[in-house]
Amino acid sequence: MSERIQPRTLKGFRDYPPAAMIPREWIIDTARRVYRSYGFSPIDTPALEHLEILTGKGSAETDKQLYRFQDHGGRSVGLRFDLTVPLARFVAQHIQQLGTPFKRYQIANVWRGENTQRGRYREFMQCDFDTIGTASASADIETVLVINDLLVALGFEHFTMRVNNRLVLNGLLEKLGLTAQATHVLRALDKLAKVGSETVAQELAAIATPAQAAAVLELAALIGDNESILAQLQPLLAGSPLGERGIGELTDLHVALRAAGVPPERLQLDVSIARGLDYYTGMVVETFLDELPEIGSVCSGGRYDNLTQLYAKQELPGVGASLGLDRLLAAMEELGRLPKVQTTAQVLIPFFAAECRDRYLALASRLRGRGLRVEFYPEPKKLGKQLQYANRQGFLAALILGDSEFAAQQCQVKNLATGASQTVGYREDVQEIMDALQPILATS
Amino acid sequence: MSERIQPRTLKGFRDYPPAAMIPREWIIDTARRVYRSYGFSPIDTPALEHLEILTGKGSAETDKQLYRFQDHGGRSVGLRFDLTVPLARFVAQHIQQLGTPFKRYQIANVWRGENTQRGRYREFMQCDFDTIGTASASADIETVLVINDLLVALGFEHFTMRVNNRLVLNGLLEKLGLTAQATHVLRALDKLAKVGSETVAQELAAIATPAQAAAVLELAALIGDNESILAQLQPLLAGSPLGERGIGELTDLHVALRAAGVPPERLQLDVSIARGLDYYTGMVVETFLDELPEIGSVCSGGRYDNLTQLYAKQELPGVGASLGLDRLLAAMEELGRLPKVQTTAQVLIPFFAAECRDRYLALASRLRGRGLRVEFYPEPKKLGKQLQYANRQGFLAALILGDSEFAAQQCQVKNLATGASQTVGYREDVQEIMDALQPILATS
Repeated sequence: MSERIQPRTLKGFRDYPPAAMIPREWIIDTARRVYRSYGFSPIDTPALEHLEILTGKGSAETDKQLYRFQDHGGRSVGLRFDLTVPLARFVAQHIQQLGTPFKRYQIANVWRGENTQRGRYREFMQCDFDTIGTASASADIETVLVINDLLVALGFEHFTMRVNNRLVLNGLLEKLGLTAQATHVLRALDKLAKVGSETVAQELAAIATPAQAAAVLELAALIGDNESILAQLQPLLAGSPLGERGIGELTDLHVALRAAGVPPERLQLDVSIARGLDYYTGMVVETFLDELPEIGSVCSGGRYDNLTQLYAKQELPGVGASLGLDRLLAAMEELGRLPKVQTTAQVLIPFFAAECRDRYLALASRLRGRGLRVEFYPEPKKLGKQLQYANRQGFLAALILGDSEFAAQQCQVKNLATGASQTVGYREDVQEIMDALQPILATS
Repeated sequence: MSERIQPRTLKGFRDYPPAAMIPREWIIDTARRVYRSYGFSPIDTPALEHLEILTGKGSAETDKQLYRFQDHGGRSVGLRFDLTVPLARFVAQHIQQLGTPFKRYQIANVWRGENTQRGRYREFMQCDFDTIGTASASADIETVLVINDLLVALGFEHFTMRVNNRLVLNGLLEKLGLTAQATHVLRALDKLAKVGSETVAQELAAIATPAQAAAVLELAALIGDNESILAQLQPLLAGSPLGERGIGELTDLHVALRAAGVPPERLQLDVSIARGLDYYTGMVVETFLDELPEIGSVCSGGRYDNLTQLYAKQELPGVGASLGLDRLLAAMEELGRLPKVQTTAQVLIPFFAAECRDRYLALASRLRGRGLRVEFYPEPKKLGKQLQYANRQGFLAALILGDSEFAAQQCQVKNLATGASQTVGYREDVQEIMDALQPILATS
């Protein structure tokens, strides 16, 4: 046999054992269920793309971080660094067959050779949903409704969707004569919550007069309830067609979301939300957990005018958002919201009468037929050892039977959280066992 | 704006539009549900591994097909070509914390720079489940039960799980003095169904006498019901301790699977099932659809003695199998079992009274609250256009309302398969709509 190889993962990459993967799968399932409830449909695209599809589509930083190499045919290829560029390529290629509106979600890994010192990983998952091919306000409204439903489905009640419209900012810049400096201003504004207004003012000084910078910061500092913000915006943007359209769209969005039943405290118009990317052209949204606002937005997105401009002539507007899976998982961990389990099964059947193996297997099959998730321990070992395993894994209940129990058609149902046991009859329909398990399983 | 880039995928890679992705997600969900019902838990590992973890672990062919390159830190890295090598690395690294038995599933893409002329793709998904750290027969039995439950859950009734035990073959080779030529014999046997016994005999001639080759082919040609095969094996393997142990294990497996309720016609002992890999040491299984046996096995696996030998000192036996997702999808397509839909939603609400937008949104929200998947068309267009869209996408029903319907609290429920319509009341609880939809949705 050859020499042993040290088992290890690459720097910046990580394994997901069951304790980490079970909550990930739960979040992914929940996202899919909510996306599907609005008619978003799944797509997938290759991990590898022609390099020319990927380069120059993100920032200078993503270009630098791109995993790129030559494939077996000598082609220059790269691993996707996000799901938006592949979506644009996909839509340009297939939209004639697919038709519009095209509502898709894609939940898949992306790769970036990032500096791992910032606690970032080089492989991470994105969960995007988008509505392509319509400029309709109702698609904007639905995007925010999806975010609301998603956070609620994930068990959050207290969160704030901060909504803005890029036309409001563009209107102000138009009024101030700063349109050519828009990107610079938006990127500076994006840091406002993190670095404070003084630092942003210093950054703005490079491209704006003190009066211009003050006007930008005055707009971004607007606070109050949504009606009051809309009222305060009016005089600041009066005379700017862009700005007035932005206020109109924000007002409409606000009214529609309230009509759709979004609680007022979850929706905050926030003119400081810029979302640095040039990409966005209308509504933008970020979502903060009220208990942990400092971790940043857990679901962000917005409207864009022309998804496929790099690949096709047809103009395709769209709107969408992306769930920050890893950030949300970190938050749920910090808030103690993640169950500590290593198993997907609810019930363990310990194996301690060796000669009864096939009867244990039959019992497990019957319970699975009733919809239970049941693990049968594979080897006859001391019961104590098997119950230790059950506790370590996080099973909710154990069904304990030996040859005398099988003979007497009885079964001991043990609640592993409380230690309490109860003896019930075991017949072919497993009804008494199901009845005894029901209150135990209901607690999880 | 820069020049346009041709939107295209790499040779050997493909996009999955909704019509292809919806059935894929359904199969993946079904596999996960069945795996979980036995207590298998999800794990994930990085797409990229240190090159030394991957090279020399598959065949000369997988080595050649490996996507390999230098990462940003100058490390030699590769994209995984299967999920078994990463599992071995993962287990060697983490088993002390995880404990045994360790039951995991992993559903993830792998990459191979294969020759695409054979209709193979360079990116494909594997759906593996394994029980690690036990030599117990009950883990073998469960592996076959999982395959049975999985195929049934996927809607198949007529399939055959062909089961063998490598000890039976090893016993014969031991008796014939061909142990040193085992790999050659097994690889030749693996082709039996495809190329016939004459060709296999020619291949065996290179390493065996005509009498030895005849004995191997006699064993592989055994047919009959399972009891008869077990009886015929006895004299052929008498005196070989390995062979007798193999017959014992096969007999036990057969009895246990019958006791667990697997229908006799689904289980066929088949001594010709070799599964060429050196890797397997005990039970092996392949699964064929009775309607399409020529597409090959859709779910295969077996028992192995030492998963982690390349990475760790500890000996870890295991057993598992892998669902052939793409092969199964191709089969379901050929058998006309895939629904032709491009949407995940059941119901479309056309948008044709522009001023009622927020009322449509409220109706959609209420129906979602009742568990329906509902799409609201984003733009007010001619009803005919929207119904064309509904038919193209594969919605089951449309809910048609204009301002007069909203005023009258009425709604037209249209069955899109039959064209039949029915007018029902629309109140806040949406009960009448749910009642009218129920028979339409039940048909899908």
